Amino acid sequence: MPCLVCGSSDTTYMNLHHTFFYPPQISSPGAGSLCSSCKDGSKKLMDFLQELDKNPEKPPLVTFRPKGLSSALCWLKVLKEKGDLSNERLGFLEEISFAFENRIHTDISLKPDDGPAIFAHKAVLASRSPIFKTILEADGCKAPPTEAISLPGISSQEFKSLLSFLYRGTLPDEEFRKHAHALLVASDKYDIPFLRKKCELQILGNLESSNVFEVLKLSQNCSSETLKKNALEAIVMHHEEILSSKEYVEFGHSNPDLVMEISWALSKKLSNTT
Amino acid sequence: MPCLVCGSSDTTYMNLHHTFFYPPQISSPGAGSLCSSCKDGSKKLMDFLQELDKNPEKPPLVTFRPKGLSSALCWLKVLKEKGDLSNERLGFLEEISFAFENRIHTDISLKPDDGPAIFAHKAVLASRSPIFKTILEADGCKAPPTEAISLPGISSQEFKSLLSFLYRGTLPDEEFRKHAHALLVASDKYDIPFLRKKCELQILGNLESSNVFEVLKLSQNCSSETLKKNALEAIVMHHEEILSSKEYVEFGHSNPDLVMEISWALSKKLSNTT
Repeated sequence: MPCLVCGSSDTTYMNLHHTFFYPPQISSPGAGSLCSSCKDGSKKLMDFLQELDKNPEKPPLVTFRPKGLSSALCWLKVLKEKGDLSNERLGFLEEISFAFENRIHTDISLKPDDGPAIFAHKAVLASRSPIFKTILEADGCKAPPTEAISLPGISSQEFKSLLSFLYRGTLPDEEFRKHAHALLVASDKYDIPFLRKKCELQILGNLESSNVFEVLKLSQNCSSETLKKNALEAIVMHHEEILSSKEYVEFGHSNPDLVMEISWALSKKLSNTT
Repeated sequence: MPCLVCGSSDTTYMNLHHTFFYPPQISSPGAGSLCSSCKDGSKKLMDFLQELDKNPEKPPLVTFRPKGLSSALCWLKVLKEKGDLSNERLGFLEEISFAFENRIHTDISLKPDDGPAIFAHKAVLASRSPIFKTILEADGCKAPPTEAISLPGISSQEFKSLLSFLYRGTLPDEEFRKHAHALLVASDKYDIPFLRKKCELQILGNLESSNVFEVLKLSQNCSSETLKKNALEAIVMHHEEILSSKEYVEFGHSNPDLVMEISWALSKKLSNTT
């Protein structure tokens, strides 16, 4: 007998009401029933809707929402509409990157380690980073737009990505993956929490045995507790493979503090498992 | 018997599967069933999900989505997460309004009809409006930041709202309602489609008998087909009340073209109803 909602044929028909309140049972032929996907979905949907309803910023439309599955539809539509509106506004706001890419009314030039100076807008830099704000306030009156401020420790490509992020609040995936480590260092140096969070997510998404030591060192340089916690967890989880590698010996000689952290993490795991 | 999904007691239990494929029928006691809200909701949910699935920009997570109601949950979570990410990015991008509000590194001053000059950033104005871009390119080299560019036809308060919108892509509701007409004129004059759309929605949301002539005139001044169509529809719908008013006589004397448009709209309606 097909599912009451999606009409699919599923061998594990269950009477949903029974699974909520009584031990699960296979419904008898002829009784209405939901397939396992709809059954599981509707239970989790109702839980998720309860969570959404707790949000103090829920849109007014949802105050008078219908009950049951109709309310799921209502929320879906509200979230879809809000998303579309946000996207339009994002498109409008990121148009300022056009002024950066085409050097329109730029008033500051910045000199990375390699390559020529890059032209930008003081107002954008100052509003995104309190450190840039301070640098520009100090040098603002002195340096004319043609005289570049030096930015040591960052390459031309990395700095272009940093600026692109400051203007658009996002980066193409490939570019982000390539420069995530350098951008995390920059987010730390120039105090840009939104970029820091994005970099951490990007780096964690690509964490693996081959780069775990690099990530651990980075976490210490940038005081990122999130990265440190996750790198240590990965090391403990794959300790046999990772600690028997040549890289560990090299890493250990130059990072005694971090090796100590690894030993504490292993010790904690051992206590919890024995 | 309570609803299979939400557990509520509803007098109009229907077997959903039957309503999809056969004539509706009241399910017999003991058979699994859905309340009318869940029945209606699940049918519309499945239709809405099919629409969402057609979106070429759907997130990759949804490619491998489960079927039935579990897919609704999947979409709800995706939309919620995308919304949260967009909001964070919006917050980051609109921080540039801080530089406007605190006059940080402003490089242009603009003089409305009344009140003192207002300081802003050329890059922001030029990237939001091709008209501002042209004005600033022409005057850019000549006018020093202390010398104001005159902006006739807009008051100080309206211009502040316009600038605030250009920096943030949104305005507080109360402020938007107050200046929507002036901002629509500005969106037309400075060619800012996103602001134009927002103003039209704001004005249509407050369209009523008492302001319908004002909106009709505005629609002509700003070449807004959306506003004109809606204002004419409102006039036709409430023609007895609106065309017998004193305001209509005054309006008619000074706007013969629009009176002609009204007569055509009435004539069309008459043809369709007889």
